[in-house]
Amino acid sequence: MELPTTETLLLALEGGVLHVTLNRPDSRNAMSLAMVQELRAVLATVGGDQSVRALVLRGAGGHFCAGGDIKDMAGARSKGVDAYRELNRAFGSLLEEAQAAPLVLIAVLEGAVLGGGFGLACVSDIAIARRDAKFGMPETTLGILPAQIAPFVAKRIGLTQARRLALTAARFDGSEAERLGLVHFCAADDAAVEQRLAQVLEQVRQCAPQANAATKALLLASDSEPLGAVLDHAAELFAVAVTGEEGAEGTLAFVQKRAPKWAE
Amino acid sequence: MELPTTETLLLALEGGVLHVTLNRPDSRNAMSLAMVQELRAVLATVGGDQSVRALVLRGAGGHFCAGGDIKDMAGARSKGVDAYRELNRAFGSLLEEAQAAPLVLIAVLEGAVLGGGFGLACVSDIAIARRDAKFGMPETTLGILPAQIAPFVAKRIGLTQARRLALTAARFDGSEAERLGLVHFCAADDAAVEQRLAQVLEQVRQCAPQANAATKALLLASDSEPLGAVLDHAAELFAVAVTGEEGAEGTLAFVQKRAPKWAE
Amino acid sequence: MELPTTETLLLALEGGVLHVTLNRPDSRNAMSLAMVQELRAVLATVGGDQSVRALVLRGAGGHFCAGGDIKDMAGARSKGVDAYRELNRAFGSLLEEAQAAPLVLIAVLEGAVLGGGFGLACVSDIAIARRDAKFGMPETTLGILPAQIAPFVAKRIGLTQARRLALTAARFDGSEAERLGLVHFCAADDAAVEQRLAQVLEQVRQCAPQANAATKALLLASDSEPLGAVLDHAAELFAVAVTGEEGAEGTLAFVQKRAPKWAE
Repeated sequence: MELPTTETLLLALEGGVLHVTLNRPDSRNAMSLAMVQELRAVLATVGGDQSVRALVLRGAGGHFCAGGDIKDMAGARSKGVDAYRELNRAFGSLLEEAQAAPLVLIAVLEGAVLGGGFGLACVSDIAIARRDAKFGMPETTLGILPAQIAPFVAKRIGLTQARRLALTAARFDGSEAERLGLVHFCAADDAAVEQRLAQVLEQVRQCAPQANAATKALLLASDSEPLGAVLDHAAELFAVAVTGEEGAEGTLAFVQKRAPKWAE
Repeated sequence: MELPTTETLLLALEGGVLHVTLNRPDSRNAMSLAMVQELRAVLATVGGDQSVRALVLRGAGGHFCAGGDIKDMAGARSKGVDAYRELNRAFGSLLEEAQAAPLVLIAVLEGAVLGGGFGLACVSDIAIARRDAKFGMPETTLGILPAQIAPFVAKRIGLTQARRLALTAARFDGSEAERLGLVHFCAADDAAVEQRLAQVLEQVRQCAPQANAATKALLLASDSEPLGAVLDHAAELFAVAVTGEEGAEGTLAFVQKRAPKWAE
Repeated sequence: MELPTTETLLLALEGGVLHVTLNRPDSRNAMSLAMVQELRAVLATVGGDQSVRALVLRGAGGHFCAGGDIKDMAGARSKGVDAYRELNRAFGSLLEEAQAAPLVLIAVLEGAVLGGGFGLACVSDIAIARRDAKFGMPETTLGILPAQIAPFVAKRIGLTQARRLALTAARFDGSEAERLGLVHFCAADDAAVEQRLAQVLEQVRQCAPQANAATKALLLASDSEPLGAVLDHAAELFAVAVTGEEGAEGTLAFVQKRAPKWAE
């Protein structure tokens, strides 16, 4: 696997885990079009390589991501409605691809988690927030819409909370994010964040990579397909998994009371 | 905008906020057919007028709404099955219209929030409950069904909690309602309720009215339409908003470090 | 009603409540093919008999159910992919049938609630857990998938929590299960479990049996059908219920300030 060259992201691959850091600290890692394109390129690359089991996404300089980039907005203004539509939709494609990535996507959330950054948080499989992180959807206070993130927020925390947060632009912290089910863990400081992240990565390491990828796809599909069809498909996936390499190794390791290869 | 004349509702319009009070205190504001019709007329009127940004719904005399009206039930009995079906479905239409109203619907919940009143609470965008409010779905203890409210309750708090509450007719208070995600805020007394309501209305005032209406519609649509189609539509709405009057004013106000017109 | 003869289950019918105990304590009530078949036979029998209003499901020997049976897995291995697919799908059919059962399904959860046992917990209408119960989906640590249970888990606790639990195989206790909305009640010890169960059964006894069955079906249907169609159907069900035997008895009992027949 050859990772793409990136200007807005820092990339580090360690033991099957790709660490991706949004790296535009001067703008609190505002989501520029270049950043969207680079994130999509990274996801496309790791999505085709089963050696990457997890992707840890965070921001440089004490913030996760403060939302869309005002300069890109200004640049689109001269080009009219079509340019805005394409710019906006491209971010939605990133969210779709991040959500569907066949690995465990872990978000580490601190500082600003606003607008588009809020949306990115909502497609993670596991989210760890610092207690003093600042979450919110300020869009309608600017006369614009939390457009691409709306369906992901509604799916993440339900329509009831999504409506309140979007229609009041309320800010809230990591504790509230945990209470709302937006994040899984709230940590008091950097040390607690890193400890939780290490624990989660160790848990993921115990799980067979292909089985995890298939399970994630199955869970996501179960949300939009009829139950009977999902169960038929699930039975097929189960039969393939249990008779395949991982299933043979996992059940043998269990009988032999040893760790399976993927957890060594 | 000319508000309809109403006998079962008190109406007061103040600064873009319509206060609607269910006003049949002798019957704990039981939902009569007349009340259903008047509420639908009010919603139809304000839905076509962008000057109304929020609607605050509450009940007179210390109760929100105790459910369906027994007298209407008795009246329908002589007319047979068809009359019951129409009576019941009309209330469902009210719930559909209230849910889709292009403004921020705020429910203030105290005293009895039962049956149909419970259903009304479930279509609000923001719900504030007094801690000593009494929530519940007593229908099946009477041999009847929480019929029109069932899908709204399931959507509001999930199938798991909806099944328990409907199949046991359990009563619970405002604290539990907050824990279940049925309401957003639980307040200890009237003063705390009014303080919370004022805060929420002030937040809503910061948000552009059309942007809020479009965002609400988008969130609701995201629940029933395929993701890709929702995102395409969202990008179109975003482009229209950012190039429109509110988007221009909101981004300019942000740059000029002043409040936008809608928040003055 | 004649209950089927069972080898893996203990059955006891008391006052309209069928108590079903998974009875393979030596294997922590692992879900064998025989147990799946017997549970399906029991559900088919009680589903056609309106005298059974609730079914209480629990496990013998201090555990609810530790998941799939390894011996059945081994037996299927020699028969190939098709045998695994059928074995797996049969368990999914059990989950579908348990979820749709026209009675109140109550799960009492203690000890191991793992894999398939976790799935069974997710289709209950009311779940009571001992605080020290052990919940989890260990499948992918074995190189296999939580295949049939995936859609039921996602529906029960949402995609966000379902993804974390499935992709990390995390274990958690009854308190956490309550916080996640997987169970309704967490009880400290056996006495507290029995007290809660008695309370729930008493609540169910107040509710009309047919009304409860119709309400449950309506709630489940609301999850997969368009809102307008659900409301039309609900109005029809309401009209039938209110003019039927239970509706007449329930409303008359209310007026006469006495308990309805089903609650005597």
